[in-house]
Amino acid sequence: MKFLRFTIEGEKKTGVLEDGRVKEISGDIFKAWGYTGETYSTEEIEWLVPLEPNQVIGIGANFVAEVDDLPEEGPDMPVFFFKPNSSVIGPSDAIQIPETVDEVKFESELAVVIGKKASGLTEEEVLDHIFGYTIGNDVTAPQYFHENGHWTLGKSFDTFTPLGPVVETEFDHTKAVVEAYHNGERKQSSSTKLMIVTIERMISYLSNVMTLQPGDLILTGSPVGAEFLKENDEIECRIEEIGSLRNPVSKAKQKTTVS
Amino acid sequence: MKFLRFTIEGEKKTGVLEDGRVKEISGDIFKAWGYTGETYSTEEIEWLVPLEPNQVIGIGANFVAEVDDLPEEGPDMPVFFFKPNSSVIGPSDAIQIPETVDEVKFESELAVVIGKKASGLTEEEVLDHIFGYTIGNDVTAPQYFHENGHWTLGKSFDTFTPLGPVVETEFDHTKAVVEAYHNGERKQSSSTKLMIVTIERMISYLSNVMTLQPGDLILTGSPVGAEFLKENDEIECRIEEIGSLRNPVSKAKQKTTVS
Repeated sequence: MKFLRFTIEGEKKTGVLEDGRVKEISGDIFKAWGYTGETYSTEEIEWLVPLEPNQVIGIGANFVAEVDDLPEEGPDMPVFFFKPNSSVIGPSDAIQIPETVDEVKFESELAVVIGKKASGLTEEEVLDHIFGYTIGNDVTAPQYFHENGHWTLGKSFDTFTPLGPVVETEFDHTKAVVEAYHNGERKQSSSTKLMIVTIERMISYLSNVMTLQPGDLILTGSPVGAEFLKENDEIECRIEEIGSLRNPVSKAKQKTTVS
Repeated sequence: MKFLRFTIEGEKKTGVLEDGRVKEISGDIFKAWGYTGETYSTEEIEWLVPLEPNQVIGIGANFVAEVDDLPEEGPDMPVFFFKPNSSVIGPSDAIQIPETVDEVKFESELAVVIGKKASGLTEEEVLDHIFGYTIGNDVTAPQYFHENGHWTLGKSFDTFTPLGPVVETEFDHTKAVVEAYHNGERKQSSSTKLMIVTIERMISYLSNVMTLQPGDLILTGSPVGAEFLKENDEIECRIEEIGSLRNPVSKAKQKTTVS
């Protein structure tokens, strides 16, 4: 089932995409919801981010180039980072390059949406706590990585986390291919089998540190091949079973000087 | 004005502390609120965290030992990090040491609560966007700092962000002293004049990266003298004009193995 959010005639709504039509629903997708009876065509709606996440967590450097490169054991301690909710945008929005840098990196990723409060999970318990999956672009300004290793600022600018187009609840995360097309040219294309830390392990690990909540979103790492985006580029992140997340790139309006 | 949250007879309420009495209020402290007419004594209430933050941001290593150590210019890029909302606890709650470590560090800090949406602020505009101030304890497990410099996990365990007891809206942040008492013994005591990056500069900087929202909370760094806490310790963070944030320390219940 593919959940989405959209506006029509200026009103924000939630819906389910079925046979190319948008069926409006009401309620809370994590608790109880029902069809309102209204349906729309995909042409008449404006797509919004399919979920306003509770929080966004990413994992660093999680793909190898080919299966033979996979280590026998994952790292004892994966690298995790937070991205603020203020960085989240939807499938119709532009990625804005901060005025202090010329380029930003795109990183196409499979994103997991937590569906149930999760604390102290074993790897076997993880799938039961996942609500669904969407596509994320973990846009990054490495120019704002701190020399001591902190990534916070470089991951946190407004518009740096495009998400969408839908949250797909029926999805086999072991059999997907994560792709990115930069101005139409394929730059990333890797099976999720190339993940170093599996989704089960990363969410088990996280849930043993912090209690995860419904609506928490976890970006599961980006395949090799990520490159830089300039003003007026277009970046499309694609996972066939979920859809295509396509965002234009523009320059942020001038703010005060960050010195 | 000192805002607080509390429970009485099992019900969560918001109030204002005035002349030692708790006056109940209703509404949104950031928008519009009014007195309900009910008042309580501080003895009959259970104190809750005074604010459920929108997000929690910290700054690294921001105090020198004495005024002569202050650099002429602050760092070009301060170290910022996020702490998850799941780490927030109130003044009546216990800090829980994860079962995988023996000790955690306390860090007494002045915490700023943002009151208005803030993007691209100059330093001069910052104070107008602050709602108030509370005390935070930036509890940390350095054992979970990643060798490449990432602090995320070490800052993120459940119970690692005690906040309280109140949010004080009338407060001169340039004239406060941030203290910590470990089992009654004073271990931290520094004037906010010893901050390397001023509150004006850190919030201006942050607001030029990400749009800050009402309810965002910024931990402004901890004085020299932070030490480690063990099970059954008590840690009191104190800023005279705001109050005293006192938390016992216990051991977290066994979870699955974080390996």
